[in-house]
Parts: sequence; structure tokens; C-alpha cells
Amino acid sequence: MNSSEILNKIPQTLKNLKEKNPLTQCITNYVTVNDVANGLLAIGASPLMSEDPQEQKDIVNINDSLVINIGTLTKSQIEGMYASLDEADNLYKPVIFDPVGAGASELRTNTSVEIINNYSISVIRGNMSEIKILAKEYNIDIENEETVKGVDVAPEDIISKENIKVNGRIVKELAEKINVVVMASGHIDIISDGKNVYTIKNGDPLMSRITGSGCMLTGIIGGFIGSNDDILLATITGALSIGIAGELSAEYIKNNALGSGSFRTRLIDELYKLNSETLLKRAKLENLEI
Amino acid sequence: MNSSEILNKIPQTLKNLKEKNPLTQCITNYVTVNDVANGLLAIGASPLMSEDPQEQKDIVNINDSLVINIGTLTKSQIEGMYASLDEADNLYKPVIFDPVGAGASELRTNTSVEIINNYSISVIRGNMSEIKILAKEYNIDIENEETVKGVDVAPEDIISKENIKVNGRIVKELAEKINVVVMASGHIDIISDGKNVYTIKNGDPLMSRITGSGCMLTGIIGGFIGSNDDILLATITGALSIGIAGELSAEYIKNNALGSGSFRTRLIDELYKLNSETLLKRAKLENLEI
Amino acid sequence: MNSSEILNKIPQTLKNLKEKNPLTQCITNYVTVNDVANGLLAIGASPLMSEDPQEQKDIVNINDSLVINIGTLTKSQIEGMYASLDEADNLYKPVIFDPVGAGASELRTNTSVEIINNYSISVIRGNMSEIKILAKEYNIDIENEETVKGVDVAPEDIISKENIKVNGRIVKELAEKINVVVMASGHIDIISDGKNVYTIKNGDPLMSRITGSGCMLTGIIGGFIGSNDDILLATITGALSIGIAGELSAEYIKNNALGSGSFRTRLIDELYKLNSETLLKRAKLENLEI
Repeated sequence: MNSSEILNKIPQTLKNLKEKNPLTQCITNYVTVNDVANGLLAIGASPLMSEDPQEQKDIVNINDSLVINIGTLTKSQIEGMYASLDEADNLYKPVIFDPVGAGASELRTNTSVEIINNYSISVIRGNMSEIKILAKEYNIDIENEETVKGVDVAPEDIISKENIKVNGRIVKELAEKINVVVMASGHIDIISDGKNVYTIKNGDPLMSRITGSGCMLTGIIGGFIGSNDDILLATITGALSIGIAGELSAEYIKNNALGSGSFRTRLIDELYKLNSETLLKRAKLENLEI
Repeated sequence: MNSSEILNKIPQTLKNLKEKNPLTQCITNYVTVNDVANGLLAIGASPLMSEDPQEQKDIVNINDSLVINIGTLTKSQIEGMYASLDEADNLYKPVIFDPVGAGASELRTNTSVEIINNYSISVIRGNMSEIKILAKEYNIDIENEETVKGVDVAPEDIISKENIKVNGRIVKELAEKINVVVMASGHIDIISDGKNVYTIKNGDPLMSRITGSGCMLTGIIGGFIGSNDDILLATITGALSIGIAGELSAEYIKNNALGSGSFRTRLIDELYKLNSETLLKRAKLENLEI
Repeated sequence: MNSSEILNKIPQTLKNLKEKNPLTQCITNYVTVNDVANGLLAIGASPLMSEDPQEQKDIVNINDSLVINIGTLTKSQIEGMYASLDEADNLYKPVIFDPVGAGASELRTNTSVEIINNYSISVIRGNMSEIKILAKEYNIDIENEETVKGVDVAPEDIISKENIKVNGRIVKELAEKINVVVMASGHIDIISDGKNVYTIKNGDPLMSRITGSGCMLTGIIGGFIGSNDDILLATITGALSIGIAGELSAEYIKNNALGSGSFRTRLIDELYKLNSETLLKRAKLENLEI
């Protein structure tokens, strides 16, 4: 699909979410869990968090999609993640995986690889540093050594006009190799299903001055894949939603000389108010030729 | 008591909380724990969260009330809940129990029944789906099969003019059978001590578009029972407090074309500013004849 | 250094933080973890939270400083704290310790003493009740019996003009005895490196009406000691930063008849907007003669 065909389908994709109010099960980190829940509620999904491994597995039976985020991964959390992923495989439930901090520790890198190797994932969403770490594990040429700064993107991995082609190729090859939709988010987002590559130039640097904007993005895409069959379209719509909400929130904050606290509150407001017209009017979605 | 007698006592009930600044111990879920703490601080209580089972038990000695919320229940959390409930029994401390997601998993349903059977609870606060699950466990006729949608009320359980009598009877019978004050919260709240039944028609649908409004309600009632001897009166005052704060916040949000992020912030503001005059002026408390 | 010499160095201290964007590793409580992360991001640091003990230790290798906060301490959390503190010792990384609720339980008091006895701490930040509990453990004369109210300062321990000399002596003697910078925060803050004693009279009582202002203070000092060699100067700059942000936020809230929810949001905004000019203009830093 070219980007204008995708844009034509955005209104229905958003409508599907709002009508279905998908039960989006999140196994996520305790730093931003409240933001993820409020982001999902704002856009029209129904978040559900649980912590007991047996219960997590059982809830897969009633969920519409599963969000796995390793932002504060512990060994005891892994058990429930694997059990839930196994059940999601059995029941063909869509899954989005956020490899927060892959590369920052062996635990996170190894768990990420285990999850991707052993379970059916629909979408992987990370920053470019995390995506490169995973790409390297799958023998994709990343052209320079990966670097990691905790859970934030390394400065040299920030997606820019200069490196967009290289990074686009990496995202595409990873998507192709493991047969998922891959999204590297940043100042420019790159999304690929292994066949086509797309960029999104919405969003605002203020998003990196609050915790949770990445986790909310992953959660919201979780809501879209829980209410739409087309995983690529769902991923792009989710990415546009939070990118545009971020843009609108940043404009408000700058016009009113506010700061990152108000930005966070306003971001949820804009997700709550978002509609198809705003999405279509503001979307900066393009095909990227590799 | 009829509803006007209760309203006469509201100012003193609120005053007692503000003067005592009750130490409200919360064993609660990690999704909304920050909201619960800020809600309690806003209204004038002193929240205390702890995680170690031995410590949780010890803190019962200095608390004014205990809040038990199973929103992200794990097996390891149960130990501290039981130890604290046991100590609260020994020391005659008031306890409010929030059976979040009862019916959504065996773990939650079974733990809820264990808690109610084995310990002295002062108040149970849930949505109507959760209350019906518990009522069924105690052989109360719920007239239709219970349904569960994760941690949110099932659409057919939303309290309305059409089902208010049936739901009122269920709440009353459960309160009578297990000898506690029971509150089913929703668009209309139902509260009963097993003798009388009351409805509250404050609040706003926006409350279900943020996470934590139910947990905050439970927490705040915890503050009121920690500073007032009359449990029914404390429960009703807590319910009115957050209902009216929700209403005021929703009015502000609608007048200013804001969204659910600002609603959450403003809800805490309104709890902070709440006084007896506003409570009495806005309270929509009525007796319900079954 | 006298207070005016310190003030002269404040601009460079803040600049160092903003230029370095220090990786501030936080092992903290789950109630306020989101506020700590957003406070650090607002001022210009890079927070990193992790939960796995092995990973926590590994991350010390890449961090710029370590924040230890026992606000919801569990026995399983202690393992990772000790491992990380051990590694921080080996690698000479600066550490700030927040003994939340020391005195409220044996677990917290004993763990606090273990941490101070066995590891190199750069800064201890607590309320006056917590500081007195620790002082007593080190045989410092605290003149009256310590009292504890959960995690909040006991009313008789609130720092005031009447008790400032006694409390100043306690802070100084503790700092001298265990060779760290000690900060007791409150309406008046007291800070000492064991040689000199300083008071800060910024801040606002509204800070005690939200959860997390103490934890944010500790976290932000963590950011400053991760980007500055002079620990005393870093501690004072951190304390002034949140005190002045709190003051500015409180002014806004009072001028606009808002409440504690907006105060919390605005506090992050003011941290985000804070610059050297505002710090110097508003700082109420004084030497205290004991």
C-alpha cells in the first residue's frame, strides 16, 4: 500500500477501536503503568493490568490483544510473560512487544530474543538503539556498532535525514526476517512490514522529556491491533495518534509557556479529543524507498 | 436514618477527617497507587503504603484504618493482606475491601471470599459486576447470570433506573448477610448497611475514562472510616466527596474543551478544595425503598 | 564556604547537570516512581529504573549516580540495593540514600543502618523524624524521644525557629560522624557536611499535600551529584531547585484557586523551566551558627 491508500483507511481504523473498546491486556513496567492505562482509556480502549502469572495467562482468553513491555523486567515477571504469550499463540491473539532497554542488560537482550524466537509477535516497537540490538542478533548488517544509553536512544542512533536510509533498511530487514511489523520510533518514526517502509514525521521533542511516551505508544498500538485485523494499518494509526497528540500538546505548552508536567496532562487530553479529521489533516506519513 | 438526617451529619463527618488527618494504610495495586495517595492527601488524610508482609502487619498498630485493594493481586501479596487483616481484627481497626476484578479470575474471586469469610470487614466497595459475583457466592438471587469484562463493570450491570430495585435488593441482602456496609458504585451508587438502602446520583461518566477513580473512592472512604465511628455515614460522605469532586471537575473540563488528562488533575484539585457547603449543596442522596 | 560563595557557584552547578544529562539510576518505591522519573527528566537528567538485582548491579557500571529510596521496601528489594551499593563502592559512584519511614518499622530502621554502616554514601536526605532516628542509632543526643508518624514527619519534629539550633546540631553531628552530607528537609531545610550548617527557607506547605515531593527532591539531588564533584554544592542546588519550583508552583495555584492536583503538575513545569537567574533571585540560603 502506498501512504495515501493507508490514509484513506485511517478513519475506519480509529472507528473500529472506538466501537470495540478493546480489552488490552498489559504486562508492563511499574514506572509508566498509570500513563499507559490512562492513554488507552483516553483513546477509547479498555486496559487491564494483572500481575499473577496464572491470572495473566487466563486473561488472554478474554483479551483482545496483549502488550508485553520489559521496562522493569524481573525474572519472576518472565514466567507470566511466557505463559501469556503461549496462550496468545494458541488463541491467535495479536501481540505487541516493546523491548525497553534491550542492549542495556543481558537479561533484557536475552529475554527479548527468547520472546521473538519462541512466540508469534504481531508488532515490535522500540527506539532505534533497541531495534539495532535486535537486528544484530538476527545477523542484519547494522553498519556501526550498537550503542546503548540506558533506556533512552543513544545520540548517534537518533533517526535523522542523514541516516534514514540505513535505518529504514535495518527496520525492513528485521521485519522481513522475523515476519512482524517493526516500528522504530523517534523524531522520525520508521515502520515496516518487511515489504514496504513508511516514515512518520509527527511528534515533538517534548515527548522525550516525560517518561512513558514510548510505553503509551506501545500500549495504544496494542489497542489498535486489538480492534483491527490489518496489523500494519493499526500500527501506523497508533503511531500517528500519539505523534499528533504530542504535536498538539507541545503547541499548547509552548503557546502558554508551560512545561513538561502540563505536557503530560495535555497529551492525554489530546488523545481523548483525537478524531479522524485531525488525524488526516496533520498526518505526515510517507513511503520510504530503500 | 433517612437521607436528610444523614445530610445533617455530613459537615461533622468531613470535619472529623480533616482534624484527625487519619493514617490510612493502603495495600493496593501498583497501577493507581499514586492517585490513591494523592486523593487521600488532597482531602486531608495521611496515606501510608508498604509492601513487606511483616511491616504491613506492624503498621496496623499505628494506622487508623486499613484499605485492601486487589487490583493487581499476586500470591505473594496475599500473605501480607491476611496478616494485616488478622491484626486489624485483633485491634478493632476499620477495614475497607475493594474486590477489584472479582469474577475475572479464580485468584481474585477466591481471595475475595476468603477475606470476607475470615476477617471483620467494615465496608465492601465494588462495581455492580463485582458485587453480584460476591452476592452469588453467598447464595443471593442475582436474577441473571453475572458477567465480567476485566476490571470494568459489564455493560448489562450498569446501574440504571430500570434495574435499580433489583440491584438495590442485591446490595442490601449482601450487606445483611455478611454484616458490612456494601457500596456498589456506578452512574448511580447504591449503599446499604443491610437495613436501609441509599442511592447517590452524583458523579460523571468521565470518571470511567481515567484509571483510579474507583480505587480513589475506596481509599477516601478508608480515610473517612479511619476518622469516624459511624461506618455508614463515613461511607456515604466518602462517596459524595468523590462524586461531587468528579462532577465539578467534569464541568470544568467541558467548559474548557479539555480531556481526561486534565480531568484527572482537576479531580484531585476539587477534592482538595471540597468543603461542607459544597457537599450539602450538591449532594443527591436518596433513600431507596426495596 | 559561606552561603554567598555557594550561591556564586550555583549557575555552574546547574549548567553541569544540563550539559551532562546524567544517567541517574533509581532503586525507589512504586508509589512515586513516576514523579521521580518526570522530575529528573524535567530538570535535565536521565532517570533509569530497574528491578532485577543482577541488572541493578550491572547498571551501576554505566550510571552517573545511584539513588536508594526505601519507601516501599521489601526483603527481596534489599538484595539488589546491597549489590548495587557494593558496586557503587567499587566504582566510586556517588550515592544518595533516602531512609523513608526509618523508625516506622524495624525493617526500615535496620536496613537504613546496614546501608550507612556498610557502604559509602554521599548524601542522606530525610525528614527531621527520620534523621533523628538515625542520629539516635549513632549515639547523638537528640534531646527528646524520637516520634514517628508513618512516613510523614512527626508534628513535634517539624523544623521551626524554636528548634532550629537543636536540629542543626543533630544534622551536623550525624554528618560528621558518618562523613556524609546530611539534609533534613521541611518548612526549613537543614544541610550539613559535618563542618558547616546551612538552612534553606524556600518551598511551600503545599509540597506536603502531594505524595512524592520528598522522593523527587532525593532523585533530583541524585541528578546533581551525578554531574558535579562537589557533593555539598550539588545537594544545596538540588534542594534550592525543588524548593523554588515548589514556591513558584504554589503561587500559581493560589493565584488561580486551584488545588493539589494542579500543584503537582505545575511543580514539574517549574522544574522544567528553572534557570540560574530564578535560582539566584529566589534562593533563601543562609549559614546557621550552632
